[in-house]
Amino acid sequence: MTQVVDRRNGIESAEPAVDVEALGEQLLGRWASVRRQARDLAARPELHKTEGLPHTGHRARVSGQLKYLVENGAVHRAFPSALGGLDDHGGNIAGFEELVVADPSLQIKAGVQWGLFGSAVMHLGTGEHHKQWLPGIMSLEIPGCFAMTETGHGSDVASIATTATYLPETEEFVVHSPFRAAWKDYIGNAAIDGLAAVVFAQLVTTGVNHGVHAFYVDLRDPVTGEFLPGIGGEDDGVKGGLNGIDNGRLHFTHVRIPRTNLLNRYGDVAPDGTYSSPIASPGRRFFTMLGTLVQGRVSLDGAAVAASKVALKAAIQYAAERRQFNASSHTDEEVLLDYQRHQRRLFTRLATTYAAGFAHEQLLQKFDDVFSGAADTDEDRQDLETLAAALKPLSTWHALDTLQECREACGGAGFLIENRFASLRADLDVYATFEGDNTVLLQLVAKRLLADYAREFRSVDFGVLARYVVGQATGVALHRTGLRQVAQFMADSGSVQKAAIALRDEESQRALLTDRVQTMVAETGAALKGSHRLSHEKGAALFNRHQNELIDAARAHAELLQWEAFTEALAGVADPGTKRVLTWLRDLFGLSLIEKNLSWYLMNGRLSMQRGRTVGEYINRLLVKIRPHALDLVDAFGYGDGHVRAAIATGAEKARQDEARAHFRSQRASGQAPVDEKVLLARTAAARKN
Amino acid sequence: MTQVVDRRNGIESAEPAVDVEALGEQLLGRWASVRRQARDLAARPELHKTEGLPHTGHRARVSGQLKYLVENGAVHRAFPSALGGLDDHGGNIAGFEELVVADPSLQIKAGVQWGLFGSAVMHLGTGEHHKQWLPGIMSLEIPGCFAMTETGHGSDVASIATTATYLPETEEFVVHSPFRAAWKDYIGNAAIDGLAAVVFAQLVTTGVNHGVHAFYVDLRDPVTGEFLPGIGGEDDGVKGGLNGIDNGRLHFTHVRIPRTNLLNRYGDVAPDGTYSSPIASPGRRFFTMLGTLVQGRVSLDGAAVAASKVALKAAIQYAAERRQFNASSHTDEEVLLDYQRHQRRLFTRLATTYAAGFAHEQLLQKFDDVFSGAADTDEDRQDLETLAAALKPLSTWHALDTLQECREACGGAGFLIENRFASLRADLDVYATFEGDNTVLLQLVAKRLLADYAREFRSVDFGVLARYVVGQATGVALHRTGLRQVAQFMADSGSVQKAAIALRDEESQRALLTDRVQTMVAETGAALKGSHRLSHEKGAALFNRHQNELIDAARAHAELLQWEAFTEALAGVADPGTKRVLTWLRDLFGLSLIEKNLSWYLMNGRLSMQRGRTVGEYINRLLVKIRPHALDLVDAFGYGDGHVRAAIATGAEKARQDEARAHFRSQRASGQAPVDEKVLLARTAAARKN
Repeated sequence: MTQVVDRRNGIESAEPAVDVEALGEQLLGRWASVRRQARDLAARPELHKTEGLPHTGHRARVSGQLKYLVENGAVHRAFPSALGGLDDHGGNIAGFEELVVADPSLQIKAGVQWGLFGSAVMHLGTGEHHKQWLPGIMSLEIPGCFAMTETGHGSDVASIATTATYLPETEEFVVHSPFRAAWKDYIGNAAIDGLAAVVFAQLVTTGVNHGVHAFYVDLRDPVTGEFLPGIGGEDDGVKGGLNGIDNGRLHFTHVRIPRTNLLNRYGDVAPDGTYSSPIASPGRRFFTMLGTLVQGRVSLDGAAVAASKVALKAAIQYAAERRQFNASSHTDEEVLLDYQRHQRRLFTRLATTYAAGFAHEQLLQKFDDVFSGAADTDEDRQDLETLAAALKPLSTWHALDTLQECREACGGAGFLIENRFASLRADLDVYATFEGDNTVLLQLVAKRLLADYAREFRSVDFGVLARYVVGQATGVALHRTGLRQVAQFMADSGSVQKAAIALRDEESQRALLTDRVQTMVAETGAALKGSHRLSHEKGAALFNRHQNELIDAARAHAELLQWEAFTEALAGVADPGTKRVLTWLRDLFGLSLIEKNLSWYLMNGRLSMQRGRTVGEYINRLLVKIRPHALDLVDAFGYGDGHVRAAIATGAEKARQDEARAHFRSQRASGQAPVDEKVLLARTAAARKN
Repeated sequence: MTQVVDRRNGIESAEPAVDVEALGEQLLGRWASVRRQARDLAARPELHKTEGLPHTGHRARVSGQLKYLVENGAVHRAFPSALGGLDDHGGNIAGFEELVVADPSLQIKAGVQWGLFGSAVMHLGTGEHHKQWLPGIMSLEIPGCFAMTETGHGSDVASIATTATYLPETEEFVVHSPFRAAWKDYIGNAAIDGLAAVVFAQLVTTGVNHGVHAFYVDLRDPVTGEFLPGIGGEDDGVKGGLNGIDNGRLHFTHVRIPRTNLLNRYGDVAPDGTYSSPIASPGRRFFTMLGTLVQGRVSLDGAAVAASKVALKAAIQYAAERRQFNASSHTDEEVLLDYQRHQRRLFTRLATTYAAGFAHEQLLQKFDDVFSGAADTDEDRQDLETLAAALKPLSTWHALDTLQECREACGGAGFLIENRFASLRADLDVYATFEGDNTVLLQLVAKRLLADYAREFRSVDFGVLARYVVGQATGVALHRTGLRQVAQFMADSGSVQKAAIALRDEESQRALLTDRVQTMVAETGAALKGSHRLSHEKGAALFNRHQNELIDAARAHAELLQWEAFTEALAGVADPGTKRVLTWLRDLFGLSLIEKNLSWYLMNGRLSMQRGRTVGEYINRLLVKIRPHALDLVDAFGYGDGHVRAAIATGAEKARQDEARAHFRSQRASGQAPVDEKVLLARTAAARKN
């Protein structure tokens, strides 16, 4: 903490200062150099979204931009080094995420080509497949589709109805869509560009359905662009956003493909039709094959954080300049950012963005550990799945909320496309339901929490419980299988009483947040106890009666993960001024969570009425403390004009105010300023009195 | 309540039934016939939004649609009967609101032409103005602008900087924009179509500024479409939505207009420059002139409700059909609408939509009373302003929230433009900040609440307070100046204790909701006591420290108004089955409000911990009760296919499922169905055991 010049008023103060550069470096994280390269690309006009294009023009532009990415070596990091890649999985995702600030359609279309289509060939295929197709996929000679989702089945992939039936006579598979609901739907690259697809279908051979497998299927004649025989489709048309991507539907009518087009890493069919797999359990095999999908969720999590950062930079910059200046006010009035409500609207979201960013960095590291093979057990993969399923819903919903609040905080100007909030929000909208619907993902997390809880307490005795409570009371964050441990709540444990004493204390926040997750899981677990002994229908009905609280518990768990990530990141901050300001921001995040769920803490006796009433007041005090550092905190995100590209965040507002001020000053000096009628009336009234 | 056939399963039950037709009639309200005419128009393809058009094409289409409205006599209801209108102010708004379901751009562009531009000439001008311009405005021969907002001033109209300075020599006003921040901004019809404008400017004559007045200014040559000398502008370009409207900027460089172009109903300038006005107080004069603006807020409130209704009809219809059907399930699984979380997401918003709809009908009646002259005192006008300022923020935010939740509840399909949620949401986004920013409007409401509170207790004695409490305890809703009365809270009053006993009781809900508003206003009032004796700066700072709670109090007040409107509407329901179901829905609305603010009720001792824990449970029970009536409740909105126009709400989903089911049935019957590998493994394992 040093004496610093306050950037608002030039007055020296004892305020702590944020070391913007060092904080920016920390935010860039482990893949800082990749992010810098990707941001350099994302700042180039060639990659920027042209607003107002019809969807046909937007699609053409993004297709061209994909070639630009290839030419600039931006998209091959995850591929094998033997083929010109870098075997760098974490870096690959980091680079993709940053593209969102150029155009979310570009990020997602690149994700379809290399992250889904190419990745499926790489991870589900074997040597020959790699040799045959990866070079063309990498170079964009083969634009392709990831044809999994069907009209009749969104998130329930195991139930897709497309079949691939083996014919030993000709050593071919017959790919077939048996009815309309089995059409592949919402498939990127399907409407126009896709020459081939990885098609997910039920593999049937010798009368047995071996479940969902992936097949490489040529779709279109590369010369004419026409569908090949037996293949048809429809254009999904205009969407609420991401209109640079040609989503479409695909259907297959007895389409024959060679036996060797089965991507056979996890399941193969011999020429005579015999099925074999290195994974005996069909369930585990399915889970393994779908595991490669997790990278989509990871990159959406990161992209959502990036979009939130850009929006907050623009809105906070503008709010720090905009004032309702008028002719009669000789002194400057407050800027928008000085208003308490405005601070509430923007700073709480700034705090959440920091938390989500730190949590994303942890997710990305875990992803890299698994995909690089550094830590690649079944348990690691499950933990990664659960972590991504917990964080992606929160960050994508947060991005939509932040973009909307920033847009409203900038008034009508926020709605102009030149200021980008509305454009980014429209494009990111679907992030909440694709690559796993957010609500469905949170249910997966809830089921995992319940399973962990059940496993832990299968053979429970008092000694174990006692150790649990001690573990918490001393503030030790217990980890198991990548999740914060859940345990039975003890209402009278010391940690909670402590929480009631000082809300701003780190351990108190942790105790309150952890306790809520544990208690919610334990209570739901107790309510569902014995449900496996019920009939399918009754069990489902019991589960349904607790669905809402289960999802709330999963959300509470994910919020705790974000809070823990923020707190762990604080430990890595060296500069004391930065640390102090970031601690306020972390406290704001923690207390906002507690405020949001205050009724729970009160109803369950975790906070007293008196203590509850202090939460809002303390948040208001934190807003005032953070105010002088708000610009530093958004500058540390490291996004420049080429990324923010919002007309209102360029200083234009301040220039207009300076001009207006100069006008009124010169008018007053000239003596030509008209007298206000109200002033005149007051003078007349005063004269009458005398 | 009669024995009815449950539409889901055809089984007779003792469930109450909703009389859809009678409820639909009640929802249409006082202006039912106008709404029917307008809906007939809105269902015509000529008026529908063509999705995916670039903004230039969309603008041209909407311009043409305005002519269609003129030809079909849809937009002249508010104009004088002498000129071919109907002098029907309430009916006029009712008709406009319904246009939102055809295309929100059409609603707003029509609102600019006739509701703002034409209305300003009518309400602010006098006989000669009406004769000269209204016929051309009505016929669309003169497309025009309402040029009030400036870049430098959004909601603060009193501070606009454009001047109109009177020159007695030539009997002209000189209209001038002195600097960039004084440009008119975000003006509908300004970029392309506007031939004239009502320009708001500071009226300066004989060296005195008489404040904001309205002037009729020709903008463009009607033949060439070029700006007239001294006038310039810019196109606002693409926006986040409403791209059928050509918003733009306008600036004036010493533009001379005849003296008689001053719309002089509330202020006039004689040839020699002498100013006169029928309203002595400049403040009251300003308020009166701006009063005509309220109709914009009223119609946005109604349009937001209409859009919410259409969205809920589509999403609930789809959720009642969609199931995750798969080959192995021989019985039908639950549809989405049977899931607790899905019910929470949609039914709570359905309840709020009913409440907002009933509240809107009251607002529209009050509007008609004022504008027809039936009840047109200053106090009536102020009440109308406050009521509109309270309801418009809630309904417009609610529409955005509902459209988004419906879109997510329909998954990726909800994001396709063919299902309209994303399109409507984009168009309605700006409703939250135009015609008065929602946050600013709620602050106006809060100030009014504080003023009423201060006036009531200026000379307070114990007897008055006692009467207040008695008034509440007996459930009498006290009205004064159109607002529910605020009074000091007495924690131990009988009404609150009663509330803790039975949350589903109407009087208990009223007591809890009313008490919260009263207490919040009283507490803030106490905190701000004496602020008028502070310096301007210190007073502002004190106010700012309570800004957040003030806005929360205004919101609580508006929610109470919605709850009261719903409750009053219940009294008008004759059919007992309908009344019972609607009472559940009203309870769901009331309890959702209490749940949202549960921490307040707990912290302030209004609800016990035990009672608090029952709120969520009771909401869950209400969801189950409402489930069988959900389709009836959205059908009662009375919107047909031509209004909903969502591909997923046409029964297509059910048809696809029937086809898939028939396929699997015939496959099983033929004996050709492949055996599932999992089934095979289970059989093998069983065989080994034997």
